[in-house]
Amino acid sequence: MREVAVIGVGMNRWGELWEKSHRTIWTEAALEAIADAGVDRVDAMYVGCMSGGLFVGQEHLGAMLADQLGMGPIPGTRVESACASGGLAFRQACLAVASGAHDIVLATGVEKMTDVDGGAATYALSTAADQEYECYHGITFPGLYAMMARDHMHRHGTTRQQLAAVAVKNHAHGVLNPLAQFPMKVTAEQVMESVMVADPLRILDCSPITDGAAAAVVVPLDMARQLSKQPPVRVAASAHATDALALHDRADLSWLASTAKAAELAYKQAGVGPKDLSFCEVHDCFTIAEIMVIEALGLAERGKGGAAAASGLTALGGKIPVNPSGGLKSKGHPVGATGVAQIRETVLQLRGACGQRQVKNASRGLTQNMGGTGASTVVHILERA
Amino acid sequence: MREVAVIGVGMNRWGELWEKSHRTIWTEAALEAIADAGVDRVDAMYVGCMSGGLFVGQEHLGAMLADQLGMGPIPGTRVESACASGGLAFRQACLAVASGAHDIVLATGVEKMTDVDGGAATYALSTAADQEYECYHGITFPGLYAMMARDHMHRHGTTRQQLAAVAVKNHAHGVLNPLAQFPMKVTAEQVMESVMVADPLRILDCSPITDGAAAAVVVPLDMARQLSKQPPVRVAASAHATDALALHDRADLSWLASTAKAAELAYKQAGVGPKDLSFCEVHDCFTIAEIMVIEALGLAERGKGGAAAASGLTALGGKIPVNPSGGLKSKGHPVGATGVAQIRETVLQLRGACGQRQVKNASRGLTQNMGGTGASTVVHILERA
Repeated sequence: MREVAVIGVGMNRWGELWEKSHRTIWTEAALEAIADAGVDRVDAMYVGCMSGGLFVGQEHLGAMLADQLGMGPIPGTRVESACASGGLAFRQACLAVASGAHDIVLATGVEKMTDVDGGAATYALSTAADQEYECYHGITFPGLYAMMARDHMHRHGTTRQQLAAVAVKNHAHGVLNPLAQFPMKVTAEQVMESVMVADPLRILDCSPITDGAAAAVVVPLDMARQLSKQPPVRVAASAHATDALALHDRADLSWLASTAKAAELAYKQAGVGPKDLSFCEVHDCFTIAEIMVIEALGLAERGKGGAAAASGLTALGGKIPVNPSGGLKSKGHPVGATGVAQIRETVLQLRGACGQRQVKNASRGLTQNMGGTGASTVVHILERA
Repeated sequence: MREVAVIGVGMNRWGELWEKSHRTIWTEAALEAIADAGVDRVDAMYVGCMSGGLFVGQEHLGAMLADQLGMGPIPGTRVESACASGGLAFRQACLAVASGAHDIVLATGVEKMTDVDGGAATYALSTAADQEYECYHGITFPGLYAMMARDHMHRHGTTRQQLAAVAVKNHAHGVLNPLAQFPMKVTAEQVMESVMVADPLRILDCSPITDGAAAAVVVPLDMARQLSKQPPVRVAASAHATDALALHDRADLSWLASTAKAAELAYKQAGVGPKDLSFCEVHDCFTIAEIMVIEALGLAERGKGGAAAASGLTALGGKIPVNPSGGLKSKGHPVGATGVAQIRETVLQLRGACGQRQVKNASRGLTQNMGGTGASTVVHILERA
């Protein structure tokens, strides 16, 4: 397999983008990544999108967006793994380059979620869970993560304050990100007094509904060294793993087995461990998610993720900053785009281009993007080339 | 890139499978392919599905079906390109094997289309066209293909009888396929007197709404020679191309540019031309589609596809049999599964295992699977190894 590098990234300002269509949002990010890479062609492209069908009534996104970019007849492939669609699109782009099938590949993610009413958005998101065994009985995602949170609290003593610490930290980071949807500070008190969604999760424990896109240009490492205007970033590992779709089928409600497995594979590929990382971008769709994720990645001991978050370990300036971008919580969560936006943040951090939210001496970053309650996880490790 | 081979295939009886769920339908085909290959593990899997969201309210299909198969934590990736989703899933599986990322990869396609009412199915299918520029104005797929048919008739003198000849031929083949949804003979008169859908296309010019799945096991060619119970079939070419999504953006309404481009790439990869093929499985979603496809593949001259179909050239026993399986028209068209079923038929033909519908001395077959009105096409060439 050829070694793979990222030489360009793009992302637009995320939020409720009512004046922009799905294809416009995507194109802004794609064009920025192409300009950032300084390439004059793209050989193939991948689009991560969770549900074009339910959110905007448009499937066939690979062809549509290749056309929109004026790049037909290049192959455009849409990839879906619920909220991990973006990370998986990036992984398929890496495989296409690694295989030798294509040289310059555009990896993108997009979701336009605000053009439907709240109930329809909740329904669309629920299709990431098990429709026959979970959703038909009325559960939605805040309810599923609330059960995971209750289990974590019961078994490991995780506290309401520790959940809040994740939101406080990520919003503090998001204030420093000019593209974030909610770049506002929140206090622990505000989180703990915000509207209840599914006990113990309150509205400020939840990531928002967002319109947005992100993109990255992937090439062989050899080509990156010759071609790139920017310092190339090497993809040191790309791993993907799955777990039972329905919570009831898991051995442990509050342990993310797919994340642990994907991380194990990724660490092995890159020849590194958690202690060798400068920072991580992870899937904090709910505050409890980040706590479980940092345990599964080996950044905190099992059951100690809450304490780790509250200790400042994972804040900017801490030992291992997590979500310097603001995470899903503050930056926003257009589900298909999130995984690619994690790649963008990681590339910019490794270039030293993140301004006030820059992680000092960043040399290696990990991204973790998951679907549903963790039935799929994609992990990448990126390094300065 | 490593050379790739197919060592196992599976497919269930297609039709209105009201007693079986989406996951059950998929699992039947997947298990048959695994048994046919004689492997005791799968390293990764791809699922082609057009719209799990709109047809059955279930996205996140890669994780769900890996779980359903009891194969978690293996990576399960869902790929979508409208009605070309299956062909594209097979292509991604080939790339994953070619790259060296995985050895034994299951390529699958599935769609359950009959659990919604007719209007909802028509809407779901319309998301393969351009929602903003075509569907909002009321057009559906029979209407789009009717415009292509009218253009072809106007410019090339294609006749109503020639359209009917495609349906007559494919139903005659389908009678010989025990898994076909509509294994019944039809006459040209029956086709031309059947209910009008969108002038000039009548109900017997249209492929049906279908539930079904298909699967194939892909491995490195070296491994195939050691591992397989069955004679391995080599993937000599895999190509994917796109075109404008909306018909109005095309230079020529009745020329399938994405099919011509994908075929050109595939012939070059395999080092062969149309005359070197023993047979083809192509995307006859409407009778006019097969006529345009055989022109774009170079099996007939431009504008002469109708005459070629009526001449018997493409019938079993003709010079280049097209759709020996019965095609989408008679076999059925569960949109995400179709591309993989084409691979299954091609593999079985190359094994000489097709009984009454066997193409004599079959040594090389081509599959052509397209999305929408041809905005995406995936072409594969398979050979006896």
